[in-house]
Amino acid sequence: MSRDYAYAYSKNSDDIPGIGQYDDFHTIDWQRDIARDRMRHRYIVKKKHDSMWDLIKGAHDAWSGWLCVLFVGLFTGVAAGVIDIGASWMTDLKFGICPQAFWLNKEQCCWSYNETTFDGGNCSQWWTWPEVFSQSKTGAGSYVISYMFYIAWALLFASLSASLVRMFAPYACGSGIPEIKTILSGFIIRGYLGKWTLIIKSVGLILSVSAGLSLGKEGPMVHIACCIGNIFSYLFPKYGRNEAKKREILSAAAAAGVSVAFGAPIGGVLFSLEEVSYYFPLKTLWRSFFCALIAAFVLRSINPFGNEHSVLFFVEYNKPWIFFELVPFVMLGIMGGIIATLFIKANLYWCRYRKTSKLGQYPVTEVLVVTVATAIIAYPNPYTRMNTSQLIYLLFSQCGVSNADMLCDYDRNFTDVNSAIEIAAAGPRVYQAVWLLVLALILKLIMTIFTFGMKVPCGLFIPSLCLGAIMGRIVGIGMEQLAYKYPHIWVFSEECSTGVDCITPGLYAMVGAAAVLGGVTRMTVSLVVIMFELTGGVRYIVPLMAAAMASKWVGDALGKQGIYDAHIGLNGYPFLDSKDEFQHTSLAADVMQPKRNEALNVLTQDSMTVDDVDTLLKETEHNGFPVIVSRESQYLVGFVLRRDLNLAIANARRLMEGITGQSLVIFTSGSNVQTHGPPPLKLKKILDMAPITITDQTPMETVVDMFRKLGLRQTLVTHNGRLLGVITKKDVLRHVKQLDNEDPSSVLFN
Amino acid sequence: MSRDYAYAYSKNSDDIPGIGQYDDFHTIDWQRDIARDRMRHRYIVKKKHDSMWDLIKGAHDAWSGWLCVLFVGLFTGVAAGVIDIGASWMTDLKFGICPQAFWLNKEQCCWSYNETTFDGGNCSQWWTWPEVFSQSKTGAGSYVISYMFYIAWALLFASLSASLVRMFAPYACGSGIPEIKTILSGFIIRGYLGKWTLIIKSVGLILSVSAGLSLGKEGPMVHIACCIGNIFSYLFPKYGRNEAKKREILSAAAAAGVSVAFGAPIGGVLFSLEEVSYYFPLKTLWRSFFCALIAAFVLRSINPFGNEHSVLFFVEYNKPWIFFELVPFVMLGIMGGIIATLFIKANLYWCRYRKTSKLGQYPVTEVLVVTVATAIIAYPNPYTRMNTSQLIYLLFSQCGVSNADMLCDYDRNFTDVNSAIEIAAAGPRVYQAVWLLVLALILKLIMTIFTFGMKVPCGLFIPSLCLGAIMGRIVGIGMEQLAYKYPHIWVFSEECSTGVDCITPGLYAMVGAAAVLGGVTRMTVSLVVIMFELTGGVRYIVPLMAAAMASKWVGDALGKQGIYDAHIGLNGYPFLDSKDEFQHTSLAADVMQPKRNEALNVLTQDSMTVDDVDTLLKETEHNGFPVIVSRESQYLVGFVLRRDLNLAIANARRLMEGITGQSLVIFTSGSNVQTHGPPPLKLKKILDMAPITITDQTPMETVVDMFRKLGLRQTLVTHNGRLLGVITKKDVLRHVKQLDNEDPSSVLFN
Repeated sequence: MSRDYAYAYSKNSDDIPGIGQYDDFHTIDWQRDIARDRMRHRYIVKKKHDSMWDLIKGAHDAWSGWLCVLFVGLFTGVAAGVIDIGASWMTDLKFGICPQAFWLNKEQCCWSYNETTFDGGNCSQWWTWPEVFSQSKTGAGSYVISYMFYIAWALLFASLSASLVRMFAPYACGSGIPEIKTILSGFIIRGYLGKWTLIIKSVGLILSVSAGLSLGKEGPMVHIACCIGNIFSYLFPKYGRNEAKKREILSAAAAAGVSVAFGAPIGGVLFSLEEVSYYFPLKTLWRSFFCALIAAFVLRSINPFGNEHSVLFFVEYNKPWIFFELVPFVMLGIMGGIIATLFIKANLYWCRYRKTSKLGQYPVTEVLVVTVATAIIAYPNPYTRMNTSQLIYLLFSQCGVSNADMLCDYDRNFTDVNSAIEIAAAGPRVYQAVWLLVLALILKLIMTIFTFGMKVPCGLFIPSLCLGAIMGRIVGIGMEQLAYKYPHIWVFSEECSTGVDCITPGLYAMVGAAAVLGGVTRMTVSLVVIMFELTGGVRYIVPLMAAAMASKWVGDALGKQGIYDAHIGLNGYPFLDSKDEFQHTSLAADVMQPKRNEALNVLTQDSMTVDDVDTLLKETEHNGFPVIVSRESQYLVGFVLRRDLNLAIANARRLMEGITGQSLVIFTSGSNVQTHGPPPLKLKKILDMAPITITDQTPMETVVDMFRKLGLRQTLVTHNGRLLGVITKKDVLRHVKQLDNEDPSSVLFN
Repeated sequence: MSRDYAYAYSKNSDDIPGIGQYDDFHTIDWQRDIARDRMRHRYIVKKKHDSMWDLIKGAHDAWSGWLCVLFVGLFTGVAAGVIDIGASWMTDLKFGICPQAFWLNKEQCCWSYNETTFDGGNCSQWWTWPEVFSQSKTGAGSYVISYMFYIAWALLFASLSASLVRMFAPYACGSGIPEIKTILSGFIIRGYLGKWTLIIKSVGLILSVSAGLSLGKEGPMVHIACCIGNIFSYLFPKYGRNEAKKREILSAAAAAGVSVAFGAPIGGVLFSLEEVSYYFPLKTLWRSFFCALIAAFVLRSINPFGNEHSVLFFVEYNKPWIFFELVPFVMLGIMGGIIATLFIKANLYWCRYRKTSKLGQYPVTEVLVVTVATAIIAYPNPYTRMNTSQLIYLLFSQCGVSNADMLCDYDRNFTDVNSAIEIAAAGPRVYQAVWLLVLALILKLIMTIFTFGMKVPCGLFIPSLCLGAIMGRIVGIGMEQLAYKYPHIWVFSEECSTGVDCITPGLYAMVGAAAVLGGVTRMTVSLVVIMFELTGGVRYIVPLMAAAMASKWVGDALGKQGIYDAHIGLNGYPFLDSKDEFQHTSLAADVMQPKRNEALNVLTQDSMTVDDVDTLLKETEHNGFPVIVSRESQYLVGFVLRRDLNLAIANARRLMEGITGQSLVIFTSGSNVQTHGPPPLKLKKILDMAPITITDQTPMETVVDMFRKLGLRQTLVTHNGRLLGVITKKDVLRHVKQLDNEDPSSVLFN
């Protein structure tokens, strides 16, 4: 039995160097990698009793998964802390500097000298650029100088970021989530998670965020975490040398990335599970949670936001929501879905244009133009000038005693800090703020369409949240004023007639933010959990869920794909979505290659010479060949990979004597069939004796299910035991595209 | 193409009544059921354009999943509310009654008359039984009367519960989670989720909880929710008539069950995902979340606990935890793992004894004896006398101004309500409480071992939490006194030297509770999330996680299985755990039936007569038969189920003329082979032309993976296209048991 077993696994043997590895831009074979890992594991368990050293090695192997995710969590937390601190310092650098200690950002600068009157703008330790140069604090000249400095710094940062990406790590651009989804589904993109990508992406991210572009650092954080995961996995051969196992670490790293991006460990794990991961055994769930928690814990210890709460946009509202409010919340969801679809379609159109036109050849110029445009338009409007995260926080928050923004210019007087906030008419500055917010909404939407997809690191979470928050806040102010003016119509009568503020515009901003983000990414549970962790608002799960649901449905009705799936399609990656259902009625026979009147390229088990095989290898480009009993009977024996065949023949030619072009290539284990010619080349050890086969009558939905769940690269199609053809992942993807009336040739890789 | 496809699906046709259903105690065929559903879906989509009525039917079909989980959520919430209210009223009935309004429980009784001095015990509206009968409030006589009433009520409730279960719904006993896990993995147990089980389980649960037995109502709540899910699924043929689709609703229902049991919707979804579900597409995740949220929302509106928080054991501690405390937390985890393993082993031993001895024949007597024993021992100790949930809440909570229990008898004086709680020496009553708690721990552990598995509805969550909370509180008090006595040793020096209470014994109770529950059930992420939602303690995820991890590792090291898996094994259900890894090196050839020198029972495609088939059906008990080209060539054509074959032959005999025992049974679609005999019986439409096949060299780990991921009932083993044998789920399970040195014949079902 164990001898047979060894044969069955001999395809995984490391006898011939290079066997078991993958080429760039190829799909991995999950079953083979997992089998390889189990064999390695059994070997270690068996050897454990041999010596003390083997025992230690065994223990190290058992712990290595946990150790690896521990490191990944620790370093992800540190990286996030560094990026947060760097981005916050450089964002403030656009406005001014702390002369006594230039390494402090505005907030720290004012704090460090115990200035208690720091309220959003003025503190004598912090010098704006006009102050530095002309010592004048007001006047039109000062405004122009500030404006100029703002644009100049933005240009500097953006050009640095774009040049770094262009020169050192082209993979560092974009959000990285579409690629990570593809990689996790079992695809090889060499260098995408390498150390250069990590370094350039981190630096470039700080720069492009500081440049004031309409982008966020949350999506790229997932990419950065995955780079860290990939790099650390090489410390542990169990993961580094096994692509399938490595993806377990990458799943955990993705969870850690979201965890540090939003301070949401549970949301991170669910994001990894729902959105990016493909193969997610439950063991990984627990490890991902650990990794996400460590990362969040480290980040909280670094405390880059300088507040006590571990959440980014901590809010606390006085009032619960009214049941009737579900109507505006669902409306927000619908609007969010529409805005999101608009954004996806426009962005996709622009990205396709970039790919096909000359524009794609000047990435740095494009970044500079967009930066200048963004800076010029953004500066005059205070809501677009400020950091996007700050804007979101402002929009989420409730107007209280301490809030001096013009959004809170209500005609109310606070007599007591603790008493309930009374409902009041909006002052003129609120209306002004609403108009500025409408402008900001339009501007952010347009700028984000042009920004996402440029060759700098750029994420989409924060701009989406911001769009939604603006929309929600405007609707919220509208609802609030409605309740103030008509407190006695039945929907408000129970809660609003007491004179207390019954509508919280900040909550609407939160719900709107969830709606747009949900529409753009099509996240569901993870979105609600992230929002809930992000804001600490346990009571508002139902409104968030209602909006997220409405937004997803509207989005799905208007355009099938979320932004990440759309970008995967744009790049032609071979991603077989595990969420889509295969809705068509084709059979395996309709999809398999070759078609009816073509010949199938096969090997026979014992009648082909080395020259025959060489010819076959030269004339075809298939990644593997089925092995059959004979050309007459066509009964299937096994499957051989092109790569293995190439390596084995080259190896034999180099090492074995007597192998000529006339040598028979033999895949059977039978006794030495001594022919009169040169010695045969025995290749049974590279033959996969257990290929997955299906019959030609198998419905394609079952085939797609098998590709997804078993992680296949190809399957062999038989009828009554005879081989008819092969179906590869590319065939399946092209077939799906064809049935969806899309261009099947847009699937580029195998 | 579509004609071929129709053939491929003809196995699912409803031409012959009864085809496509399953027998009791059989495994379902996931692939077939899902394919059936997709075909139905396509049919509806195609017909949608025909008429208005079809359009409405199409829309109803699209919505039915959401509608169904909405109903399930609503009714689960209501059921949980009724059970909570009923159990709370009847638990208090053991102690006394509200004479003015007998339907109120003690708390409501005291509240309803605006008595403000209700502090845990005394309110003039509530009459204890001695008061009702003798008007005396104190004295030994009164104690004895109370004791007697307590035992009498307990006996009454328990006997009622056990008799109801015995008479009307034997499936209503136990927690139900092992069976639900098995059912969700694709097994049929008729009546297990029926309306009688629902009614009797609900009533029996109220009674058995009120009887003061050491059991909880949280596990059975999952069973009750699944019953509701099953019943509502029959309103929607999409789910009611398709076992695979029905399991999507059941997964959502399980999430709703945990959601109402603990007020933890996110935890519920993760519990369903991690612990009970098997086939969990991401679509189900979102729907489960919706269902869990609706259920929690309804329950919160009913508000059976009468407090503002939606969480069961809401706690708020003043102090965060110190880093050093991770050491005792991990220690608690280890202790929790040990206690849990002890419990599992002892309980399993007792359950096996019950199954094999005469004891199993007297379930009602057993319940009565255990009830009397529990009541007699529990009453004198105040901590065992009180409701287990109340005890857990007390142990979790922090000693504050309002807490008058003897656990809080510290030598401190509260001068200001708002100021920090100073650290203080424990008073004598605290030590007394500790001794009582030690007694309670031992008692609860022993009583729970005997209780879990009795023929009454009984859950394990609350007793496990309680054991852990007692253990944790004791350790916590120890740590607190250590910090009080030695505030200057380095581990405490930073936090504890200020005189403020730095150690919160309640937090230790919480961590201990998580540890024992984790050890007993082997839950991980869902446990942490449930505990976090249960207590509202966001800050304590790290300690909870440390303890849960330690406990799981210790548990896994000491005994392989959690309590649910152990009970599944005890009952011989065919459950193929998707978490275990298959660690052995066997090949498909080693596992398949028949063994080397037995004959394989097969059908040929066109050479057997009806009599031959009848003989085969009579002589064998297989659930299906492979169809081959001919006995000589053995090339595989397809697979036929015994049930379908029986039905088809019976149907043909009834309806078709000329069918005799000599009629050929033909599985091909070829032209009418007109023989000289009677007309042939064409059975191509019941032939599965796309059976899943593997080669004999396939490693068993791949086979097990395919069984799990594709949800197979059997797979056919071939070699070079020839059929060698069959592997059924039972074969796989028996093989796994054999390799684990367990009794393979303990797997009872197929």
